[in-house]
Parts: sequence; C-alpha cells; structure tokens
Amino acid sequence: MLDPMGEFDLIRRYFKRPATRSPLGVGDDCALLAPAPGLQLAVSSDMLVEGRHFLSTVDPARLGHKALAVNLSDLAACGARPLAFTLALALPAVDEDWLEGFSRGLFALAEAHDCELVGGDTTRGPLNICITVFGEVPPGAAALRSGARAGDDLWISGTLGDARLALEVFRGTLALPAAAFELARRRMETPTPRVALGLALRGIATAALDVSDGLVGDLRHILEASAVGATLDADAAVARVALGAPDLAPDLGIDILRLCALSGGDDYELLFTAPAAARAAVERAGREAATPVARIGRIDAEAGLRIVDAAGAPVAQRFTAFDHFA
Amino acid sequence: MLDPMGEFDLIRRYFKRPATRSPLGVGDDCALLAPAPGLQLAVSSDMLVEGRHFLSTVDPARLGHKALAVNLSDLAACGARPLAFTLALALPAVDEDWLEGFSRGLFALAEAHDCELVGGDTTRGPLNICITVFGEVPPGAAALRSGARAGDDLWISGTLGDARLALEVFRGTLALPAAAFELARRRMETPTPRVALGLALRGIATAALDVSDGLVGDLRHILEASAVGATLDADAAVARVALGAPDLAPDLGIDILRLCALSGGDDYELLFTAPAAARAAVERAGREAATPVARIGRIDAEAGLRIVDAAGAPVAQRFTAFDHFA
Repeated sequence: MLDPMGEFDLIRRYFKRPATRSPLGVGDDCALLAPAPGLQLAVSSDMLVEGRHFLSTVDPARLGHKALAVNLSDLAACGARPLAFTLALALPAVDEDWLEGFSRGLFALAEAHDCELVGGDTTRGPLNICITVFGEVPPGAAALRSGARAGDDLWISGTLGDARLALEVFRGTLALPAAAFELARRRMETPTPRVALGLALRGIATAALDVSDGLVGDLRHILEASAVGATLDADAAVARVALGAPDLAPDLGIDILRLCALSGGDDYELLFTAPAAARAAVERAGREAATPVARIGRIDAEAGLRIVDAAGAPVAQRFTAFDHFA
Repeated sequence: MLDPMGEFDLIRRYFKRPATRSPLGVGDDCALLAPAPGLQLAVSSDMLVEGRHFLSTVDPARLGHKALAVNLSDLAACGARPLAFTLALALPAVDEDWLEGFSRGLFALAEAHDCELVGGDTTRGPLNICITVFGEVPPGAAALRSGARAGDDLWISGTLGDARLALEVFRGTLALPAAAFELARRRMETPTPRVALGLALRGIATAALDVSDGLVGDLRHILEASAVGATLDADAAVARVALGAPDLAPDLGIDILRLCALSGGDDYELLFTAPAAARAAVERAGREAATPVARIGRIDAEAGLRIVDAAGAPVAQRFTAFDHFA
C-alpha cells in the first residue's frame, strides 16, 4: 500500500472525461459505440513497450502523443475518420507527474482529432501502453493492402527517415548539429498521423498502409497482398529525408540517407498507390490535407522489388524491414 | 537475431485465421467491423500482466482461455453478444510451445462464443496480454451500473470465492485437499464468462457488472453509480463458495469463507439487480442459460452497504476490494 491512489482514483483523476460522441464512456464494464448508420468500424491496436518503442527518458507528454498517433496512423491508412479509443496501461508505479504529462499529450492529440477515450484498463506492471482505436469508414472506401495494380504510381506522404536519424544519434552511431537533432527527435517522438490525407485519398488510392517498419519492409506487404512487383526510385525516397538538406546534416553520406529513408522505421507516413490517371487528384488531395506527397516509383506486373537510382540503375545496398522481434 | 521467426511469421503461424463474420480481419492496418443494422457495439479492454493476473507457471492454454474469458465477462455484464476481438501481445521471447498452447486455449474459447480474432499487435517485452473485445447489443438493452433502484433484489450467478481459495493455497496461507485445490485452481485459471446469462437477462436486470475485484468492492460501483445503498446477506454469499462444502474443505473457518466470498477477486460472476416482481423471470433466465443464480441481498434507498448474517445481524468483519495497484 505504498501508493496514495488506487486504480479507480487514478482512472478518475487522469483519464475520465465526459463522453460526448459515444453512448457510454469510461467507467462501465463496456463502452458503447454507435457508428453512423451504414458506416463500418475500422479497428486497430498497437502496444508500446519501454526500451523497444520508446526510450525511458522520453518526455511523458510526447509519449502520450505518440501512443495515440501510431494508432491514428493506422486509421489514416484505411481512410477512416477517428471516433474513439481505449487505453490499457501497465505502470511500474503511480507517478503523478508522469501521468499528468502523459494524459496531457494524449488528450491534446485526441481532441485535435475529435477522438474520445471510452474505456480501458490500468494495472501495475512493466510500463506498457496498449491503445485500440476506432474510426468510421463507408463500406468499400478503405484502401487495403491488396488493391495495388500494375501501372499504378507509388506515392509517399511527408518525409522519411528522420526518426531513424534520431535513433542513430541516440545509439551513438552518428552525430547531427543540435538543431537538426532536435528536429529529428521531434519527428521520432511526436509523429503526425496523416488522418486528413487518408480521408482525402478515399476513392483515389488503390492500396495504402502507414510506414512504421521502414519503407522497403512495408512496401513488401502491399506487393505480397496485391500479388504485384514494384520499381522504387531510391533517390526520390532519399529526397524525402528531411535532414538530407545539406545545411542541417552536412556530413551524412548517401548510404546513411538511403538506410534512413528505405529502412528507417517509425515514419508513420502513408505509402499508397494510385492509377497514373489520378496524379492530379492525388496532388489535389495532398493540398486539401496540407500534406506533401511525392511519387517514388511504380507498381509492376513482374513480381519482386527493384530499387533503382534516379538514372534507373540498380542500387546494390540491402534494405531490411524493422522487426520488433529481431 | 536469435529467433527463428520474425513478427510476421509469428502472426501468420499462430494467430491468422480466415475472417468469417468481419469484412476484413488480421493483416491489414485496420480490421473492419460491421455491427448488424441498428445495433450498438460494446467494447472492453483488459490487460493481463505476469505475476499480477497470472502466475508464471500457469499452463499457457489456460492462460489463453483466461485472457479472452475476462473480456467476454465484460460483454456478458452488458448483455452483449460476442463478435470479435483484437490481441496485443508482448513476449519476452518466441517460445513456440508456449504460443501453441496459448493460441489453442484462446481459440477454443473464441470459437465456443463465435468471436473471431480480427487484428492486433505483437512485440518483444515483458509478458503482457491485452485483449479488446467487441460485442453487439441493441440500443438500451445493456444493463448499466447506474440502473439499480431501491427495492430491487441483488443477485449473483454461479459461485464466488474459488479463485481466492486457490490463490491463498498458492500463497501458502491455507491448505486444501488435492481434489478441492484442483477444482479451485481450475476456477481461477479458466473462469467461465457468463455470456448466455447476460443475454438472457436483457430487459430483466436493472444493473449489472462482472465481479472481478471481489463482491463487496464491485457492488460499491453499482451503489455509487446508481446513488443507492444495499443490504448484503453474508451467509447467502458464503453459500456461493463452492468449496464451502464440508467434504471438500473441512477446516475452513467462517472468516476465511466470508473473505473469499466477499473480497475474493477473479470470480467473473455476474452481480446484478432486478425488481422483486421479476424473480421468476430471473430464475427462468438462469435455467435458459444453464447458470445457477441466487438472491444475496436487496437494494436500499439509504446510502451505504450493510453486511448482515442470515439472522439480519451486522457482520463486523471488514472487506476490501482487490486493487491491481495495491
């Protein structure tokens, strides 16, 4: 009995907000969700473990943001509009400063997306954050991994590689100027879920996913599910590494930049395909969502992934997916 | 790279089954759920941590059963029909024997309730099992914690206290004959979610919850949410300790039996209220669901919980809720 607060006080103080969109929120055995008539419910769960998905030193407000952001990113990939989420939390101890920061970061992002906390669980244990998020999507509107067709363009939102650059600085394998490191670290710790872009791409994207385990690894999921191949322009992908700007990161070689762009991990950008005839529509969707989009390759009928440079010559460097079990 | 299997192989081998009731199951960014027209979705999340919710020595098949059972129990309390669930799993290592047993126990219960796995997450980390379960319920049919009214009867399903008896044997604070211990241990490790009873009580129960933190602690949630009090017959509750049968547990004193029945924890029985005029309907619901039900008290207009013996005299023993943070 070392703690000043029990489980129920803790829930009440930090996590209970009045439910506004759901018929029943935090505090009963179940939450009740009522998707709008005719809409399907998109559901995704992500579990974040200390030392694997975040460093023990991370600012708790940024961690609260990230825990929800990685889930909203899955909704974005399905073109779903955020509705609600549940939070299950194992904590080694009740640390009120940590809970205050964590809940502040969590609710700031939740409110920005009109996505309300409807239930969950708290327990003592090694720090573990498991969020399940719910969104609404019209039947048939979700761009699945299986929808890519030969001839489609391959697109990416935003920039790639920043989180991996920050991770390598933390690991001590490379150095960045302070301003560049801070920018990369923010991208690693507070990714922006591309929800608006996901909605704008409904009916335009043929396949989509969010890049969490590195571009090349995640692209292989689309190729496998769609039974197609692809040609990926490594240089176009490298141009999506924000820190490739020479003034911010003067000494990074092309191998490091390609590694971060193609195998980075923790990017939470949308990788999607669309017919070549839809290029103007994709660019318009990007503008509507205020999210940069760029073409980085094409889908081929021939199986396999071919990584080429801007001149079309094969790139010999090997790229692997980030694996949470490796 | 010590493991023979990465995350995706692991998901595929042990957890991927074809989705039959959901439009889209395991393997895309989101699962898609389509509740039947007009129905609401009941949602609940529970997180199980080794050493707190289960012993490290537990049979993995029983653990797979229990991880889903405690979630189905929340659906039962809301009168919801199971539909689907997500599983997020942190594992310290890939142990194929453990995964085989865990998934076998999990799917056996899932299939018995026609509840399909639609998504989730796997990662390396201290053993942690987080399941979010989804059920369907007609609007207004869920018995909430706030529905108890003065004059209602207080009911309990099944038996109470077995799991606590087993826990005390594991803790070394009491001894049971081998046959009694095995019975208690099975109740602790493979609780039966009262889904059929929850469905049968739709429109009959005025308030309901599942008893997971001990009868007295959980009853207080109903009293608080409903702004009522209650008189609880300790002897009627003690009679619900299955192992109180003298031939199984000859040496247990009344204090131990009351502790197990009233403060036990891990019971996963339904505690519910219903108007006195509905007694025959409650008993019929119990028969339909093949689940014993018993009256153990009544709801009072006067605030507070009064615990009495069979003669109506106050019981002095103190009972507290089980708190996962204590």
